[in-house]
Amino acid sequence: MKLLEERIQRDGVVRGTDVLKVDKFLNHQMDVELFSEIGKEFLRLFEGEKINKILTIEASGIGIACVVAQCFGVPVLFAKKSKTKNIAGDVYTAKVESFTHGRVYDIIVSKEFLGPQDRVLLIDDFLANGAALMGLITLVREAGATLVGAGICVEKAFQPGGEMIRKMGVRVESLAKVRSMSEETGIVFCTEGE
Amino acid sequence: MKLLEERIQRDGVVRGTDVLKVDKFLNHQMDVELFSEIGKEFLRLFEGEKINKILTIEASGIGIACVVAQCFGVPVLFAKKSKTKNIAGDVYTAKVESFTHGRVYDIIVSKEFLGPQDRVLLIDDFLANGAALMGLITLVREAGATLVGAGICVEKAFQPGGEMIRKMGVRVESLAKVRSMSEETGIVFCTEGE
Repeated sequence: MKLLEERIQRDGVVRGTDVLKVDKFLNHQMDVELFSEIGKEFLRLFEGEKINKILTIEASGIGIACVVAQCFGVPVLFAKKSKTKNIAGDVYTAKVESFTHGRVYDIIVSKEFLGPQDRVLLIDDFLANGAALMGLITLVREAGATLVGAGICVEKAFQPGGEMIRKMGVRVESLAKVRSMSEETGIVFCTEGE
Repeated sequence: MKLLEERIQRDGVVRGTDVLKVDKFLNHQMDVELFSEIGKEFLRLFEGEKINKILTIEASGIGIACVVAQCFGVPVLFAKKSKTKNIAGDVYTAKVESFTHGRVYDIIVSKEFLGPQDRVLLIDDFLANGAALMGLITLVREAGATLVGAGICVEKAFQPGGEMIRKMGVRVESLAKVRSMSEETGIVFCTEGE
């Protein structure tokens, strides 16, 4: 998606060789007009798939997922990172290893809101090692729901998550795929179909 | 807001005398069409206030804030609950005491995205003891930004947060104010102007 790639080039900041800061518009400050364009693009890509629910993970996926969900006209469900007293009882759980925070945590969704009747699109801001996405896939499978695919804003194609998850047969659509990046040379995106 | 009160009556679940579960439509599964109506109502209430930024706190406030922000045509900034390596350096911080989780945590926003030029509307799903909202107010003041007010979906008017914050001179608009609730008698809302 040209618009997103241009925005990353303009406002993204590379730190070292593996941190891409996009907190000016994607995951701290959030440009909801850009999110709306992202939603239209995912709708174009997944049109006709009869998606009836969008699943994401807290925190930075939630905003994008909600705006995308408006395009699809479906509700969002977000996986929570720890059990609070406001969710009692019946939940699906999966373990996620966070590379950013250096720890393993549980994610949960209430069984009440995900089941065999659901055709689910996963939405997240980033795909790198694939840990969060794997956790969401586990939740969908536990629930017996149909996984239509995953819509990702920024994929770091030089990290293993995307290849791993596509090899599982999951359709992954990434709107901007970073082939390589460094503070010296900047950001290089994959070409179409790469 | 009648639509929200009716939805709370229909799909909200009271546990004991102080937990109101609205996770079917507000803060776990999220009804983005309802969020859009909420956004229109906040726009009506805060019209002409020249708001140029919406500030919320992760996680459940983010979805509502993003849909509301579309109505206002402004970006969202969300306060993060802990420092990750993706945000380096210059941040505003405040302490928040979570009654739900029984601990004190720091919230932060990058100084880059909040400053004296901003006219800020705070958005959150719940107002009870007011701890989260107080934290956001602290961030706005630290930044030297103008606090226009706070838009809350559900206020538990029998808890002290709303009164405390209004007494500070902050405009708080709550779309549904719960006067009292119990498992036996259900939910009673405040009347207009109460």
